[in-house]
Amino acid sequence: MAYNLLKGKKGIIFGALDENSIAWKTAMSVHAEGGTFVLTNAPIAMRMGQIKELAEKTGSQIIPADATSVEDLENLVSQAQEILGGKLDFVLHSIGMSVNVRKGRAYTDEKYDFTAKGWDVSALSFHKVMQSLYKSDAMNEWGSIVALTYMAAQRVFPDYNDMADNKAYLESVARSFGYFFGKEKRVRVNTISQSPTPTTAGQGVKGFDSFISYAEKMSPLGNASAQDCADYTITLFSDLTRKVTMQNLFHDGGFSNTGVSQEVIEKF
Amino acid sequence: MAYNLLKGKKGIIFGALDENSIAWKTAMSVHAEGGTFVLTNAPIAMRMGQIKELAEKTGSQIIPADATSVEDLENLVSQAQEILGGKLDFVLHSIGMSVNVRKGRAYTDEKYDFTAKGWDVSALSFHKVMQSLYKSDAMNEWGSIVALTYMAAQRVFPDYNDMADNKAYLESVARSFGYFFGKEKRVRVNTISQSPTPTTAGQGVKGFDSFISYAEKMSPLGNASAQDCADYTITLFSDLTRKVTMQNLFHDGGFSNTGVSQEVIEKF
Amino acid sequence: MAYNLLKGKKGIIFGALDENSIAWKTAMSVHAEGGTFVLTNAPIAMRMGQIKELAEKTGSQIIPADATSVEDLENLVSQAQEILGGKLDFVLHSIGMSVNVRKGRAYTDEKYDFTAKGWDVSALSFHKVMQSLYKSDAMNEWGSIVALTYMAAQRVFPDYNDMADNKAYLESVARSFGYFFGKEKRVRVNTISQSPTPTTAGQGVKGFDSFISYAEKMSPLGNASAQDCADYTITLFSDLTRKVTMQNLFHDGGFSNTGVSQEVIEKF
Amino acid sequence: MAYNLLKGKKGIIFGALDENSIAWKTAMSVHAEGGTFVLTNAPIAMRMGQIKELAEKTGSQIIPADATSVEDLENLVSQAQEILGGKLDFVLHSIGMSVNVRKGRAYTDEKYDFTAKGWDVSALSFHKVMQSLYKSDAMNEWGSIVALTYMAAQRVFPDYNDMADNKAYLESVARSFGYFFGKEKRVRVNTISQSPTPTTAGQGVKGFDSFISYAEKMSPLGNASAQDCADYTITLFSDLTRKVTMQNLFHDGGFSNTGVSQEVIEKF
Repeated sequence: MAYNLLKGKKGIIFGALDENSIAWKTAMSVHAEGGTFVLTNAPIAMRMGQIKELAEKTGSQIIPADATSVEDLENLVSQAQEILGGKLDFVLHSIGMSVNVRKGRAYTDEKYDFTAKGWDVSALSFHKVMQSLYKSDAMNEWGSIVALTYMAAQRVFPDYNDMADNKAYLESVARSFGYFFGKEKRVRVNTISQSPTPTTAGQGVKGFDSFISYAEKMSPLGNASAQDCADYTITLFSDLTRKVTMQNLFHDGGFSNTGVSQEVIEKF
Repeated sequence: MAYNLLKGKKGIIFGALDENSIAWKTAMSVHAEGGTFVLTNAPIAMRMGQIKELAEKTGSQIIPADATSVEDLENLVSQAQEILGGKLDFVLHSIGMSVNVRKGRAYTDEKYDFTAKGWDVSALSFHKVMQSLYKSDAMNEWGSIVALTYMAAQRVFPDYNDMADNKAYLESVARSFGYFFGKEKRVRVNTISQSPTPTTAGQGVKGFDSFISYAEKMSPLGNASAQDCADYTITLFSDLTRKVTMQNLFHDGGFSNTGVSQEVIEKF
Repeated sequence: MAYNLLKGKKGIIFGALDENSIAWKTAMSVHAEGGTFVLTNAPIAMRMGQIKELAEKTGSQIIPADATSVEDLENLVSQAQEILGGKLDFVLHSIGMSVNVRKGRAYTDEKYDFTAKGWDVSALSFHKVMQSLYKSDAMNEWGSIVALTYMAAQRVFPDYNDMADNKAYLESVARSFGYFFGKEKRVRVNTISQSPTPTTAGQGVKGFDSFISYAEKMSPLGNASAQDCADYTITLFSDLTRKVTMQNLFHDGGFSNTGVSQEVIEKF
Repeated sequence: MAYNLLKGKKGIIFGALDENSIAWKTAMSVHAEGGTFVLTNAPIAMRMGQIKELAEKTGSQIIPADATSVEDLENLVSQAQEILGGKLDFVLHSIGMSVNVRKGRAYTDEKYDFTAKGWDVSALSFHKVMQSLYKSDAMNEWGSIVALTYMAAQRVFPDYNDMADNKAYLESVARSFGYFFGKEKRVRVNTISQSPTPTTAGQGVKGFDSFISYAEKMSPLGNASAQDCADYTITLFSDLTRKVTMQNLFHDGGFSNTGVSQEVIEKF
C-alpha cells in the first residue's frame, strides 16, 4: 500500500532504536512512499539498537547525534543536506527519556539533576533541533516537522512521572516555534499525541501492560499501533496537510474524548 | 497531483453548491484520488447551484435530500449504496445555515423559530445523517465521516451569531456518535475546523471581508483555502488515518493557537 | 460558616426540586450569605417538588415559569425585580431533561421530536433566560449568571445520551451571550461543570450508581457534592470574581484532568 | 470589603516585589480577610523591592529564599510553620523570569544556558516548592496552592518568548502534583491564567503597552487588574472552593474565549 506521497522529499528521522520503534516504522513507510532521509540517534542508543539494519533496508545513512548538543545538531543538519542533495522537507522527533523514571524516583521525590537531564533530552532537544534547522535555513518551504508526544501533557497518568511535564514543554515548543517557522519559512510544526505504544522504551514504564489494556478498553477504535502512527505521520509530511500547524493531534482511537467506556464502567 | 489514495472507495458528499464550495473542491479531489460518490444537496440549494456540472465532471449521480428529513436521508443512504454497488467508505457533511443571520437578527435578539430551524439544518442534520447510516449498517469497517465546522464553537466571533452554538452542537454529535460508530462499526467520525473561507455561503456573513483579512494576518501560514480543505479531507478519508476519531481538527494555518501576531499587535 | 458575601444582592434561582437539588443547596447558601431571590421552576416540576418548604426557609417567593416560554420568562424577570425591589445581581440556571433518556431511546436511535424538546428545555432555555434579562436590562453591572453543566460536553459518557450535545450547546450559549453581556452590560456568564451528583434528576440515568463510584475513584479529591457546588457558586456570585467570564469551570475534585487513577488502573 | 474568608488560615506568599505586584495585592487582601503568612522572595529581588513595607503593613515576617534552591525552600517551609504556629493552608507562587527575554535573545536564537536558568526559576521552582511542602507534610487538609500563569502556555504571543514554554511546564506541574497532593493530602493545586498585568516585571517585556491595549479591547469585561487577581485568589484559598483542583483558571475578562472583538475587527 504505497501512494508515492513523499516522492522527492528529503528529511531527518530521529529516534529509531529497533523495529518496535515508531520512528523505525515511520522510516520504513517514508521509504515506501518515495522519501529519502538520514537516520540519527544518540551514540549510546545506537550501540544498543539495530539501526544499521534499518539503514540498509531503506538505503539511508546514519549520522549519530546527541540531541542535547547544539554542535552535534548543527553538524547533523549540515551533513544531512549534503548527503540528500538539498534542503529538507520533513523531520521526525521521537525522543524521550526520564532519568527519574529509570532510577525509580516517584514524582513527589524527584532528584532535580535527573529532572533537568530528562527535560533537556525529551523537551528542550526539540527546540534545539528546530533552532539548528531555522538558523541554517535548512527547511524547504511547506516543509513539515513532527514530534511525538503523549496525553499526559494534558491529564495525569500517575506512572508517567516527570515525562508529563516534559511533554507539556515539548508541545509548547511546537506551538511557539511553529509560529516563527510558519511566518518566516512557510514550515509547519505539529505534535502527534499517540496511544500508549509497546515500544522498547514504553515497556520500561511501571505498570505498562495494565495501562495498555486500560487504554485499549477506553478507545472506541482500540489503541493506535506504531504502524498506525507511521501511516498518520506520512499524511502530515505530505503536501495534503500544508495548512495544519501548531497543533497537537490526538492519534489514539478516540481515547482522548472518551470520558468512560461501557467496558470500563462495568468494572465498577 | 493524485495518489490513488481513495481507489475503490465509495461515499456521499453533502453540500456542493458551486465551485467556491469546499464540498465541490472535495468532490473534485476525491474523484481525482479514485473515489466514487453520490452528490446530494437540499432541493432548494440545488436549484440555485451548478451541481449538475460537478456531477458531469466527476461521473456522479445526484440525489436531492433535505438533510433535516429522516425519510429523505434513509432514501439517500439506500439509493447511494445501490448506485455505487456496495457499502460506503466516506461521508462529507458540509451543511450550515442560520435563519437569524439571514434575517439580520442579532444574537441578543434571536427569534426562536429561526434558531430551531438553523439548529436542525446545521447541527441536528449531522446526527440524522449518521443515524441513517448506522441503523441501515451502511458504512464499511474503517469508513470515515467528516463534518465541517468553525472555531466559533470554542471562541466568540460576534457576527457568527447562533451558528457558533450550532457548531458546538455539531462537534459534540461527532464525538458522541463517534463513540458508538467506533465501538460497533469501526467507523471514525471527525470534524474539520476550517479557516474562514470565501464560499458563497460564507460571504453572506456581515463583515466577512475584514474578518478574512484579520484571520489571514493572525495565521502564521495564512488562511487555509477551500482547496487546502479538500486536500486535508482526502487524508481523513484515506486508510492512513484509521485511528483518528472523535477529534475536532483545526485546519487554519495556525490561527487557533496564535494569541496575537506581530502584524495584528502593530495596529495597537 | 457565612461571610456575608452576597449581602444586598438579588437574583433568580431556577431548578430547585427537592433538598437533593444543587439549586436547593445554592438557595440555602445564598440566603445564608445575605442574598435575596425569587425561586422558579416549571409548573410541572413544582407539583412534584417541595419548593414551598424552601421558599419558607429562605423567605422567598415562588414564580412558576416554563423556561422554554419566552412569555413566562419575561413575566418572571419583570416580577422578580418588582418583588426584590430592583435589578438583579445573580441568576442560577439549573435545568436539564432529555426525553430520549426518559423514554429509554439509545443515542443511536433518537426520536427527533424528543431531541428537540430536550434541547429546548436543557440548552436553548439558557439563551431565552439571558435574552429576557438582556432585553429588559434587568441585570445590575457586575452581575453574575451561572449555569450548571457536565463534562459530557467535552468527552463521551455513553449513557449521558443527547444531554451531552445539549450541554455543549449550553456552554456555547454561555460564551456567546457572555461576550455581549460583558461588552454591553458588564455582566459575567459562566458554566460550572460539576461532578456527577446524586440529585433526584441525576439518579434517573441508567447505571448512575456505578458511574458515581467510578468518578469518585478517578477524582483525586473525590466527587464534588451538591453542597460543594453551592459553595462554589457563591464565589462566582460574589464581587471577588468579577473578571471571570465566558468560562466553563470544572468543579469535580480533579476528575477532568486525571487520565487514570491508581485505583482505576488496578482493576486492569 | 472584607468577609473574614481566611480567618485562622496560614500560608506563604512568594514574589511580592513592590506595590504593583499581584503577590503584594494578594498579601494585602489575605491580611484583610484574616489570614496570616510569611513573605518570601529571592535575596536579589528583595534588595530591589519594598517588601519590608508590606511586611509591616500586614504584620508578617520575611524569609528570603531562592526558589531554585531545595535547601532554601526546606528552610522556608520549616521556619514558616514555626513562625505561624502550625501547618499551612495556602501558598501563592508568583515567580517568573526569562534570561533570554532580559538579554534580548529572540525565541529562534535562544542561548540554552539562559533557557535552563529561566526554566528553573519560572517553572521547576513550583515543583520544588511543592515537593518541599509534601515531603515535610507541611500542608493542612483542604489546603490550597496557587501559581500564576499566562495564556501563552496555550497560544503564541510572539514577544513572550520562552516564558510560554515555562508556563506550559508550570501548568503541567500543577496538574501532576495536584493529583498526588489531592490523593494523599487532600490539598488542591491550581493555576490562575491572568490578563497581562502592568507589574514591574511585566513592563519589562517588549511591546508591553500595545499588548495591554490589545488585550483590553479583546476582553469583553476589560483586563483583570492585579487587585482583581488578588480578589480571585482569595476565593481559591477559601473553604468555598475545596473541590476545584488541577485546573488552569482563566482570569482575564473573557479574553481567552473571544475569537475577535468588534473593536479589533474594525481595525481591518
